[in-house]
Amino acid sequence: MSITMSSASVPVFVRMLSNISGWLDKADAHAAAKKFDPSVYLGTRLAPDMLNFTKQIQIACDTAKFCVARLAGVDAPKFDDAESSLAELRARIDATVAYLKSVPAAQIDGSEDKEITIPRRDGSMVMKGEAYLKHFVLPNLFFHVTTAYALLRHNGVELGKMDYLGAPKT
Amino acid sequence: MSITMSSASVPVFVRMLSNISGWLDKADAHAAAKKFDPSVYLGTRLAPDMLNFTKQIQIACDTAKFCVARLAGVDAPKFDDAESSLAELRARIDATVAYLKSVPAAQIDGSEDKEITIPRRDGSMVMKGEAYLKHFVLPNLFFHVTTAYALLRHNGVELGKMDYLGAPKT
Repeated sequence: MSITMSSASVPVFVRMLSNISGWLDKADAHAAAKKFDPSVYLGTRLAPDMLNFTKQIQIACDTAKFCVARLAGVDAPKFDDAESSLAELRARIDATVAYLKSVPAAQIDGSEDKEITIPRRDGSMVMKGEAYLKHFVLPNLFFHVTTAYALLRHNGVELGKMDYLGAPKT
Repeated sequence: MSITMSSASVPVFVRMLSNISGWLDKADAHAAAKKFDPSVYLGTRLAPDMLNFTKQIQIACDTAKFCVARLAGVDAPKFDDAESSLAELRARIDATVAYLKSVPAAQIDGSEDKEITIPRRDGSMVMKGEAYLKHFVLPNLFFHVTTAYALLRHNGVELGKMDYLGAPKT
């Protein structure tokens, strides 16, 4: 099978977002063992002017969601960015993964040269589908996923490379 | 143009590794402004049991290097992991990028189902080329690139999203 726009995107997103749910389980267990409220994680930052843990996960979800919606030319579901617990972040991830899986691969494939418009505060940016996936979506998705992971590690949650990558997939 | 194994890998690696060189310039400038030795960055870690800054960059380079070598079925150049300054890390990145650009795309394309063997301390792992790229190489590469970025941010270097992503590419 040749690699396609859908095979290069959806399975990567689903896998990494699903892995985060496992990290949240370990974060809950760590908070219980150390007797602190797990909502403490939500506001943590690696630097005072970086986004907090909640935002890292919300943006990871939205980066994946908008990629699939834009490549396929369909509307993305709207989420309210109102999560205030690990359980609510888990639900956000679940809803995003369900959406990603609901869009047929055939609607995403062939979008390499499709013009994608990305709304930004300082005017919208236009990129072709393949460049958007490779040079905007994947770097952003992994940025937010890795930063969420780093925040949990920095705060003592026992995660390792296999939690980050997920079970080997041949 | 359809997305291919080479187009989904090499340009992503080259771009992200090249971006790091720009971060190192800003790290040098920050150290000069604050009057500390820039080699201080090299040993920094986000958690005591995470790898240090030098290792994050060495592994980011090697992840890209081995991916291209394995998909193309050619030998990878050997680097000594002896860098002890930002200048030497910049040279490591430059050598890696030169190698990535030297392998013809045609040798990488069509490797979706090729069996890739990844040597590991606890026995080797075998994955097909496309799964290897998507579920091992890209997550690992971005993990180490983002962790290097986070270490510089955590230590006060003024980097922003555009330094991370690089100039927009349509």
